[in-house]
Amino acid sequence: MKTSHVNRNIRTDLAIEARELLMGEVRQEIPGVQLDTEDVDGIHITRVEITTREAEKRMGKKQGKYITLEAPGLRQKNTELQEKVARHFTKELLSIINIDAKASVLVIGLGNWNVTPDALGPRVVKDLLVTRHILELQPETLGEGFRPVSALAPGVLGITGVETSEIIQGLVEKVKPDLLIAIDALAARNLSRLHTTIQIADTGITPGSGVGNKRLGISRETIGIPVIAVGVPTVVDAVTIADDLISHLLAALMQEAGESSPVYKVVRSIAEGDKRAVMAEVLEPYGGRLMVTPKEIDTLVEDMARLLAGAINAALHPAIASEEAGKYLH
Amino acid sequence: MKTSHVNRNIRTDLAIEARELLMGEVRQEIPGVQLDTEDVDGIHITRVEITTREAEKRMGKKQGKYITLEAPGLRQKNTELQEKVARHFTKELLSIINIDAKASVLVIGLGNWNVTPDALGPRVVKDLLVTRHILELQPETLGEGFRPVSALAPGVLGITGVETSEIIQGLVEKVKPDLLIAIDALAARNLSRLHTTIQIADTGITPGSGVGNKRLGISRETIGIPVIAVGVPTVVDAVTIADDLISHLLAALMQEAGESSPVYKVVRSIAEGDKRAVMAEVLEPYGGRLMVTPKEIDTLVEDMARLLAGAINAALHPAIASEEAGKYLH
Amino acid sequence: MKTSHVNRNIRTDLAIEARELLMGEVRQEIPGVQLDTEDVDGIHITRVEITTREAEKRMGKKQGKYITLEAPGLRQKNTELQEKVARHFTKELLSIINIDAKASVLVIGLGNWNVTPDALGPRVVKDLLVTRHILELQPETLGEGFRPVSALAPGVLGITGVETSEIIQGLVEKVKPDLLIAIDALAARNLSRLHTTIQIADTGITPGSGVGNKRLGISRETIGIPVIAVGVPTVVDAVTIADDLISHLLAALMQEAGESSPVYKVVRSIAEGDKRAVMAEVLEPYGGRLMVTPKEIDTLVEDMARLLAGAINAALHPAIASEEAGKYLH
Amino acid sequence: MKTSHVNRNIRTDLAIEARELLMGEVRQEIPGVQLDTEDVDGIHITRVEITTREAEKRMGKKQGKYITLEAPGLRQKNTELQEKVARHFTKELLSIINIDAKASVLVIGLGNWNVTPDALGPRVVKDLLVTRHILELQPETLGEGFRPVSALAPGVLGITGVETSEIIQGLVEKVKPDLLIAIDALAARNLSRLHTTIQIADTGITPGSGVGNKRLGISRETIGIPVIAVGVPTVVDAVTIADDLISHLLAALMQEAGESSPVYKVVRSIAEGDKRAVMAEVLEPYGGRLMVTPKEIDTLVEDMARLLAGAINAALHPAIASEEAGKYLH
Repeated sequence: MKTSHVNRNIRTDLAIEARELLMGEVRQEIPGVQLDTEDVDGIHITRVEITTREAEKRMGKKQGKYITLEAPGLRQKNTELQEKVARHFTKELLSIINIDAKASVLVIGLGNWNVTPDALGPRVVKDLLVTRHILELQPETLGEGFRPVSALAPGVLGITGVETSEIIQGLVEKVKPDLLIAIDALAARNLSRLHTTIQIADTGITPGSGVGNKRLGISRETIGIPVIAVGVPTVVDAVTIADDLISHLLAALMQEAGESSPVYKVVRSIAEGDKRAVMAEVLEPYGGRLMVTPKEIDTLVEDMARLLAGAINAALHPAIASEEAGKYLH
Repeated sequence: MKTSHVNRNIRTDLAIEARELLMGEVRQEIPGVQLDTEDVDGIHITRVEITTREAEKRMGKKQGKYITLEAPGLRQKNTELQEKVARHFTKELLSIINIDAKASVLVIGLGNWNVTPDALGPRVVKDLLVTRHILELQPETLGEGFRPVSALAPGVLGITGVETSEIIQGLVEKVKPDLLIAIDALAARNLSRLHTTIQIADTGITPGSGVGNKRLGISRETIGIPVIAVGVPTVVDAVTIADDLISHLLAALMQEAGESSPVYKVVRSIAEGDKRAVMAEVLEPYGGRLMVTPKEIDTLVEDMARLLAGAINAALHPAIASEEAGKYLH
Repeated sequence: MKTSHVNRNIRTDLAIEARELLMGEVRQEIPGVQLDTEDVDGIHITRVEITTREAEKRMGKKQGKYITLEAPGLRQKNTELQEKVARHFTKELLSIINIDAKASVLVIGLGNWNVTPDALGPRVVKDLLVTRHILELQPETLGEGFRPVSALAPGVLGITGVETSEIIQGLVEKVKPDLLIAIDALAARNLSRLHTTIQIADTGITPGSGVGNKRLGISRETIGIPVIAVGVPTVVDAVTIADDLISHLLAALMQEAGESSPVYKVVRSIAEGDKRAVMAEVLEPYGGRLMVTPKEIDTLVEDMARLLAGAINAALHPAIASEEAGKYLH
Repeated sequence: MKTSHVNRNIRTDLAIEARELLMGEVRQEIPGVQLDTEDVDGIHITRVEITTREAEKRMGKKQGKYITLEAPGLRQKNTELQEKVARHFTKELLSIINIDAKASVLVIGLGNWNVTPDALGPRVVKDLLVTRHILELQPETLGEGFRPVSALAPGVLGITGVETSEIIQGLVEKVKPDLLIAIDALAARNLSRLHTTIQIADTGITPGSGVGNKRLGISRETIGIPVIAVGVPTVVDAVTIADDLISHLLAALMQEAGESSPVYKVVRSIAEGDKRAVMAEVLEPYGGRLMVTPKEIDTLVEDMARLLAGAINAALHPAIASEEAGKYLH
């Protein structure tokens, strides 16, 4: 799980949220950011493309394509909707991947399997149909329609003592895949996006600039091959919620007071100064290490991991009809 | 994990927090609530006794004894401190238990093993030294200094379809123990108490009155034998944090404005109305099911479970010197 | 996992194996044992009924009905076959259950979740659709076609210190179900039956008479309601394999020597005496606690648990079409 | 888990068993194989050194040093003995490692975490004190007496699609450690060695030559740095047990018959031919994939993993007194 900052306090890994935040400030379309949306089968699909250097800077997100599938219904157990989301995810992933049928793919499940909200990547890898060794040693057992897929969940720095990007570089040099897919749990800004949103990006993964976050990126620049990042928000940072709460309250206070009221100014000036102090006081002592998650996090992560694994299997192996994606899970 | 309300929004299962909240409101000692504190080995021990019906009502906690051990150092990995806390916990537990050496004990690990912050009870049970069957079938293999201990982690209503208290009643009727110890994860009000505080109570467990919380209690009244409750706070409800944040901010605003200022009244009146609306807006859609926990929750629960299991083993079996409590864990 | 003896050394929990063994000795049909077989969809279904007291004694199996589904193809991952087996299992289970649509059912997952081959029962319970509490508290959320189902995995004597049958008795007295289904991992005699065979019996579970096996039975006699036992062999006792190996070798030796040969007699007499000594020597020091299992035991247990849970859900809740059994798993 | 053959049917990864087998055949000391034994604290320590090319061939084990610690008492839960074994293991490991205090070490946990008897390596890695990243980023938090240690459990070919030796090579090229320690579950010939024996070898790991076992080795030749292999036998192959049983029986038969008896010759000639057929018949259909393990395998693997992790931590970090090895486990 990595985090990147759009503005102070608010951490989001989702390009759509970065855009929303920026739009909220500037209240007009952002040059260099293209947007396309589609609503189908109860799923809201957003395709954002960041095309200029300047938009990259303002958004705090690398130039490239970001596709988001949002299905609020996933919050409830709904196997029919899960299957629909899986099918559309497969389609969108294929649209962004763009490799030929024989090209080999390495899938990396990022994150810490000991920490439930961070275990999404390793859990997806567990259910992938890994074929590289079979195609090399006993290709006849598989038949047509499978490409070489390998997979690893390398763990996190605290578990291995090695930067994840270094482990991946070493592996890529040996396996020489044509494409890397990196799966990771994300931080969102908005609680409604937890476990209901999937982001696909062709930009790879750029770690945040926060303290203790000096990990190198996982992208074409560092790895040498195209990197597709797939992520699902599983937590909202407690600081984000706190900031949201206080901002909403201040906005409500100021609106009711009216701009001309003396109260308005007082609230505004006081607020700016006190906000931080109050947040520090309340969120101390666990500070930056606090997260907000739904209580049923374990089930939600498990369900999403199965959905993603099935849909990635279907995208990578033409032999697996999307409808039967679930069949090849262990 | 159960929750009980002291006042609106604020949920805490800790008697010391209920007292703090009430003291904050009334700003004087509460009649019918006795208090005794001790600081030793870096541990702050508080012994609260609620002795009157009226204090029970005001505190929202049953009449009886509540002992709390607080060791903020537990937030960091510190095996030496863990051992000290275990020793003092053993001592306090023995002071409240008050049964003879041959009396039999049933330990119940409450909570849902699939939900990390609620898995404390089942995890403790896993490491208990269970002896009832050995003392019945092959007593000679154990030697002196062991009492009959049995244990069960019955799961939660959603897993079994049966009220936990009913499962326990059925079991107690068969096993006929002299004492029941129930271990449960708690909700705290204060983040600093997460995974650093242990509460022992001789009142059993009274479920909150909230919606969906109609479970019967587990206490001498329902079970027919003394019930000791042991609990550790593992989550703070997101609503509690939100309430805290907003209250702190409003207090700061009002203080700076000064009571005579017109701002003061405006803020106050507006605040009362808006607080709830803002909280509902931000915490929606997961509403009441959101929790705030440290990111390293998995490790913190594991560590605390080992500490408690070792210390309960030492308390129940005189043969196990407290110093060697860890030795009998699996 | 319980074990019962047909003859010395050979332990099997399967009625069909008990019958095979007895047939091998007496070489004729056994009075009081009725047999009916069917081959369908690659599944061999055997329905054995033991109808007399004498047959019960000779077979070492209680009077009653035993249905066995054998599908050797389950040894390989084959989701289509799994679905067929699930459908036929549902049908056979319904034929033996014979309760009305509103009758309530308690499902018990026997065995030790910490020991993979013994974890089948608890694993099945994990994926059951438990409805008793919903039908009591919020029946409107479920709609038609669901009966009250509750479930518990009580653990084993070594974990709880309490006889499993006592825990179940206590629970039955509180829940008052109309039927109990007990799921357990079994020991087979024949390796080919591991993870490929499911036995349904209307006799409940009678524990073996071996040392340390004094657990009371779980049957209509001890529980007071009908008990259906569902079991899958997951291990062969090492002693069984050893006995098999030696018996096969001796048979081969004797056959080649010819009955008239002096070798025949010598081998026979020597063999009878040495067999036990050799087995004791080789299987010491883990003796009776050794098991033989396929290396992929973890996956095989997981797959079978899902199959059974889905099929039991479909059998108990008319609303769940057998074809969609998998959909209601968590 | 790898396996190597000393003679047909008998698979053992232990040099002491290879030696025993060879001694059993040739009935004299083997040139080029040096032996040294020691009995201390209830532990039998054997130091075997294979010094010639010819001995390597006859033993089926690479030239180098093999140290074995055997403590039959480990079969029972015995924390005192565990601590003694840990201390002696630390000492022996240090004697074979021979690197300076600042040298960096990479520990690899081989095997499949989904298969209990093969999960030893990954389980040990989980409890290691990994320091490489701390010494690089925040050395001041550790103090003196820690060397840079990194660790990875790379999984097995069927999980990743990549040869484990390739993953390790890639990692070594990035991390550039001075020494590699590889931990693996082993196959023994003798049941009494399961979970009671630890082997340390300075030869690295040479995979068996069996079918499906074409994995490259992990040794100084393939990795470029010294490789210490640490292993514990957790299974005996079912074929080994079968072979043992039959051989013992035939030996007993022949001995009682007497060499001059006509029975002797018949048994011998018949036996040679039938042995294989009988084994194939009985062990079919799971054939080579069957293993024999104690029923409590899960607990035994867990206990041994803790012992090894604690002892390796103590060996690698001078700051960790061997006596306190357990303290630094998570």
